[in-house]
Amino acid sequence: MKGNMKALRKMKPGPGLEMREVPIPAIRDGEVLVRVIKRAICGTDLHIYKWDEWSANRLKPPVTTGHEFYGEVVELGADVRHYRVGDLVTAEMHVVCNQCFQCRTGNAHLCENVVILGVDGDGCFAEYLAIPESNLWRVPAGIDPELAAIYDPFGNAVHTVMAGPTVGKSFLILGGGPIGIAAVPVCKAAGASMVLLSEVIPFRRQLAATMGADRVIDPSKESVEEVVRSLTAGQGVDVVLEMSGHPDAVVQGFRSIRKNGRYSLLGIPSKPLSLDLARDVIFPGVTVQGINGRRMFETWYQMDALLVSGRVDLKPLITHRFPMAEFEKAFAAGLSGDSGKIILE
Amino acid sequence: MKGNMKALRKMKPGPGLEMREVPIPAIRDGEVLVRVIKRAICGTDLHIYKWDEWSANRLKPPVTTGHEFYGEVVELGADVRHYRVGDLVTAEMHVVCNQCFQCRTGNAHLCENVVILGVDGDGCFAEYLAIPESNLWRVPAGIDPELAAIYDPFGNAVHTVMAGPTVGKSFLILGGGPIGIAAVPVCKAAGASMVLLSEVIPFRRQLAATMGADRVIDPSKESVEEVVRSLTAGQGVDVVLEMSGHPDAVVQGFRSIRKNGRYSLLGIPSKPLSLDLARDVIFPGVTVQGINGRRMFETWYQMDALLVSGRVDLKPLITHRFPMAEFEKAFAAGLSGDSGKIILE
Amino acid sequence: MKGNMKALRKMKPGPGLEMREVPIPAIRDGEVLVRVIKRAICGTDLHIYKWDEWSANRLKPPVTTGHEFYGEVVELGADVRHYRVGDLVTAEMHVVCNQCFQCRTGNAHLCENVVILGVDGDGCFAEYLAIPESNLWRVPAGIDPELAAIYDPFGNAVHTVMAGPTVGKSFLILGGGPIGIAAVPVCKAAGASMVLLSEVIPFRRQLAATMGADRVIDPSKESVEEVVRSLTAGQGVDVVLEMSGHPDAVVQGFRSIRKNGRYSLLGIPSKPLSLDLARDVIFPGVTVQGINGRRMFETWYQMDALLVSGRVDLKPLITHRFPMAEFEKAFAAGLSGDSGKIILE
Amino acid sequence: MKGNMKALRKMKPGPGLEMREVPIPAIRDGEVLVRVIKRAICGTDLHIYKWDEWSANRLKPPVTTGHEFYGEVVELGADVRHYRVGDLVTAEMHVVCNQCFQCRTGNAHLCENVVILGVDGDGCFAEYLAIPESNLWRVPAGIDPELAAIYDPFGNAVHTVMAGPTVGKSFLILGGGPIGIAAVPVCKAAGASMVLLSEVIPFRRQLAATMGADRVIDPSKESVEEVVRSLTAGQGVDVVLEMSGHPDAVVQGFRSIRKNGRYSLLGIPSKPLSLDLARDVIFPGVTVQGINGRRMFETWYQMDALLVSGRVDLKPLITHRFPMAEFEKAFAAGLSGDSGKIILE
Repeated sequence: MKGNMKALRKMKPGPGLEMREVPIPAIRDGEVLVRVIKRAICGTDLHIYKWDEWSANRLKPPVTTGHEFYGEVVELGADVRHYRVGDLVTAEMHVVCNQCFQCRTGNAHLCENVVILGVDGDGCFAEYLAIPESNLWRVPAGIDPELAAIYDPFGNAVHTVMAGPTVGKSFLILGGGPIGIAAVPVCKAAGASMVLLSEVIPFRRQLAATMGADRVIDPSKESVEEVVRSLTAGQGVDVVLEMSGHPDAVVQGFRSIRKNGRYSLLGIPSKPLSLDLARDVIFPGVTVQGINGRRMFETWYQMDALLVSGRVDLKPLITHRFPMAEFEKAFAAGLSGDSGKIILE
Repeated sequence: MKGNMKALRKMKPGPGLEMREVPIPAIRDGEVLVRVIKRAICGTDLHIYKWDEWSANRLKPPVTTGHEFYGEVVELGADVRHYRVGDLVTAEMHVVCNQCFQCRTGNAHLCENVVILGVDGDGCFAEYLAIPESNLWRVPAGIDPELAAIYDPFGNAVHTVMAGPTVGKSFLILGGGPIGIAAVPVCKAAGASMVLLSEVIPFRRQLAATMGADRVIDPSKESVEEVVRSLTAGQGVDVVLEMSGHPDAVVQGFRSIRKNGRYSLLGIPSKPLSLDLARDVIFPGVTVQGINGRRMFETWYQMDALLVSGRVDLKPLITHRFPMAEFEKAFAAGLSGDSGKIILE
Repeated sequence: MKGNMKALRKMKPGPGLEMREVPIPAIRDGEVLVRVIKRAICGTDLHIYKWDEWSANRLKPPVTTGHEFYGEVVELGADVRHYRVGDLVTAEMHVVCNQCFQCRTGNAHLCENVVILGVDGDGCFAEYLAIPESNLWRVPAGIDPELAAIYDPFGNAVHTVMAGPTVGKSFLILGGGPIGIAAVPVCKAAGASMVLLSEVIPFRRQLAATMGADRVIDPSKESVEEVVRSLTAGQGVDVVLEMSGHPDAVVQGFRSIRKNGRYSLLGIPSKPLSLDLARDVIFPGVTVQGINGRRMFETWYQMDALLVSGRVDLKPLITHRFPMAEFEKAFAAGLSGDSGKIILE
Repeated sequence: MKGNMKALRKMKPGPGLEMREVPIPAIRDGEVLVRVIKRAICGTDLHIYKWDEWSANRLKPPVTTGHEFYGEVVELGADVRHYRVGDLVTAEMHVVCNQCFQCRTGNAHLCENVVILGVDGDGCFAEYLAIPESNLWRVPAGIDPELAAIYDPFGNAVHTVMAGPTVGKSFLILGGGPIGIAAVPVCKAAGASMVLLSEVIPFRRQLAATMGADRVIDPSKESVEEVVRSLTAGQGVDVVLEMSGHPDAVVQGFRSIRKNGRYSLLGIPSKPLSLDLARDVIFPGVTVQGINGRRMFETWYQMDALLVSGRVDLKPLITHRFPMAEFEKAFAAGLSGDSGKIILE
């Protein structure tokens, strides 16, 4: 497709983003061109916007940002075999090599050579996106387009919850950002007997409660460990999901987990922290898992099943909507913390 | 405790049971005496009542029948350390050896030397029961006594459902006896995306629907395979739970299962049947599991979690209640098929 | 590459194969052309040669046969990114769709849309082979070319052995064809405490013993069940690998397995057989697995690890070598049963 | 049995042990009296001897030390059903409650109420030991009595190695104490493709090499990470077993592990340490496991299988033997570091 489009781009190192007019991307063999209909802002986009240390080390401007979207296939490259013009899609934005050990043993989400669109290559905060066919995910009939736009973070939540047994287990979620909150109904749908969520921002605690948390904890006012132990006959929870990256939360998780418990880490601590491995991991026989991305594509089938069956209702998670032109307002809402997911239309 | 009690006993080979006056059982070291408050009739009890081939080979009359109950601890043997008089309990009635390979590797439900109370030893269709402390299960506060009396069959259902991944999976349950029906809400609580149940008796199909089956199938009028395939985009279900033991149902399960699916067999076919292993197991990469009893005691913790959290409501499963003296009526109701669980008070 | 080549082809329905002069295959985007150096005959090739019922239903002549080989990349199609001319390779001959549920959830060996080269498309019993890059497997330095030619059946053996826990387990292998025999050293390398193999042909029993079987059994003269029980304190083996497809062997396996044992079925029975599921599967809590192909590509990494580390020595398994022109002799040797793997050079 | 016996006891807080004359212990119901024939010194015994912080917090003198032994049953308590006088035994010295969640779900090695004989109660550095029948392990015919005396530490090694997949995996063992060295042949028997061991003491590096390590590393002279990466095509090992407890080693393990690798921690760090969870656990998708004791009794069956099949030869691990009276010399040898296992006869 010929012509220009609007795109939200990081033009040079430093804070902020710019709305620019750029050519509609050309598609290569095996790629499709997607007209983007809905976009959502990820925590990663906020880091890129603010230009933190991680962004400065990783991005090579200029680049079009954004990696959460819903759209329509409008053009097919050579060799595209499974999609047609008009298909409604979202996508896994990790473009993987399919040849490394991880890719070839069912762990492509840990590909040695991954390129993330919206970070390492041009993303979806634009009118059009070029993407390999093998990254597309067909949106099932009846799925709300706004929810189709947030499969990426929903997938983080599902992947983390599903990284071990769930049925009849008690969960503590640390952090009430959009992924932490999305994890609440996923735990419930996956058979959790109890779901606790700890978060300092009142708006987010309220949202977590709305989405089904049995008890929200304000770690600035209550002892997470004490609340957890009082609700678990002193044993601690079966599973801790760390989704904040905050050093205090990481430690609270270790103090609140049962012997033989599962501790799944998704949030990214910004620096090293001190851990008492003897007391917190070895003596209690705890398993600590690093979690990354979404399983390709087992997690995606799970998302479809949870949404299509109606077992998970994510709609309340979407709290703000802005036209793409008002991206400054959208990012401000995201940075405020008084928000769930924010849609760019 | 001294004195006599009433007990429902098989006095000699042949059909029927007799209500007899027998001494209250003496307890040995490590055992407790339980006053039985509620009892439930199992399909096994129906086999014993009718005196089928299995019963004739297994039972050594005279024996007091029954292995599902709720009661109160009334006397403690020497060395009993974890229970007190007045504790409210149900129990695992498989008395295991704790010394064989299965017992010592976490599979006591497959003990080489199991003695089943109510089958191989005196059971709970009586006013009192003597049972080892290690077989007891403390009933959590708030659990309905009638539901406490059916942990045994509920445990069969939970064990079978939980013998593989459940979240986001589609299930076909073959057979709508009490265990098959109990499996319906367990599948739902365990995250199933869809639960289908096939059963010829209308009463039981209705009960399965009441308890949450997404679709019930009458295999005498519909093709199970066709219904399943029409609801699964032609793929078949992820998991089949065979809970009827009927040869036709076993075969229907194989025709209705997805490639790489799990086929869990709990129902006991009364005779050998013909299977096409190449077409039904090997080419599609299906896994077939023989399921037996309940995991001791992982399944019991799961049952507590499912009931206490309110995720499973078993109450509608209990359709009939009789005084123990009216056991003939109770067994007739069970044999009729127009029943769920039947309580003897 | 232009020109003609020799190829061993099934030209029309019916027994036998013909050596024909055909054009060197053209390669498409994403494919490579391989000069085939070594080929090996599979049991499937014997079925095709004889033209049994399965072959008659599956093959669409004319087609070039063969799916086990070692060769050298001689030409690269467009978009081939990971191989160079001169690379030494073998390959997974299951060409999969990468889009179905099985492919996208780590089970591509169960692809809904598989095309097998040498069965559904032109194979490697020729001078050249066109194959997608993504099917290639790079042969590690130091691997004997003849062994590189038998990764396909070696992979069947590794996949079957590795389909459950192996360390400290006792194994019974039913059938001493090349895959059954290859499974012997794989079991040993995987930590088996004991490996028994049952086979009627003396040549193959001898070969199994040479490759490390602790005891070979002649099922025409001994009771498999009795031998197994005498060597396992009456318990039966932990794992049975059915690699013969013979109905009697399937039943012997069920009689020789421990409670809670694993029964992995790879051999293809030619017709339905009668099974006593209650006695053989349900009461003993046995798990029966249908096994198919090789995991793509977890099994291949395992094969590399076992061969490169020297933990498995497959060399004795190769018992015959013929020039491709003498294919009639080669197939006769395979059909005789007095053979392990047969190489066509 | 009446009379006195010699016992090696901690009489009061502080370094050292004393050989005392004490009454032969009385046995309770369910216990047996064992005449101890061989004993072995554990690292824990060295800590108790030196009276480090852990010992000072845990032990309540006076107590008879020692928890590794081989002996003969000489007297049976009431209710002992599975052993006879004259039986040759070793034992799991963790006396567990059989009633807590961990005990009742197959994880008795993490019992909430464990009493360790030789630490919390009288142990086996004496002529006689009283121990519950359920803790005994029958020594298979043909097992060397000295090896029977070290099932406890051998079990630590087996449990740690077997806590995840092993076949075809590369291993790095950090620490060449007796457990680290015992892990070398266990890894090999369990199918490891490569086993590396890092240890500062030359005597122990030599012993590790003798027992089959493919490469020993001196971390005081070489970079563990560099050696590992050079031997694994830059990827790191599949599995790290931390068996030293040294903070530097813990960190070296994280720098030497593959993406998606397993990091099993058995060694006890004496204090908290700083970890970069983002870089070392989350981004690479690493799983960190706390390991404790031995599985009861799955690990014990594995030990029997590995020793009886001859797949593991532990004999070289036993480097010193002393009469019990020369315990001072024995502990000095243990503290020197120039030793493997030390037997007290």
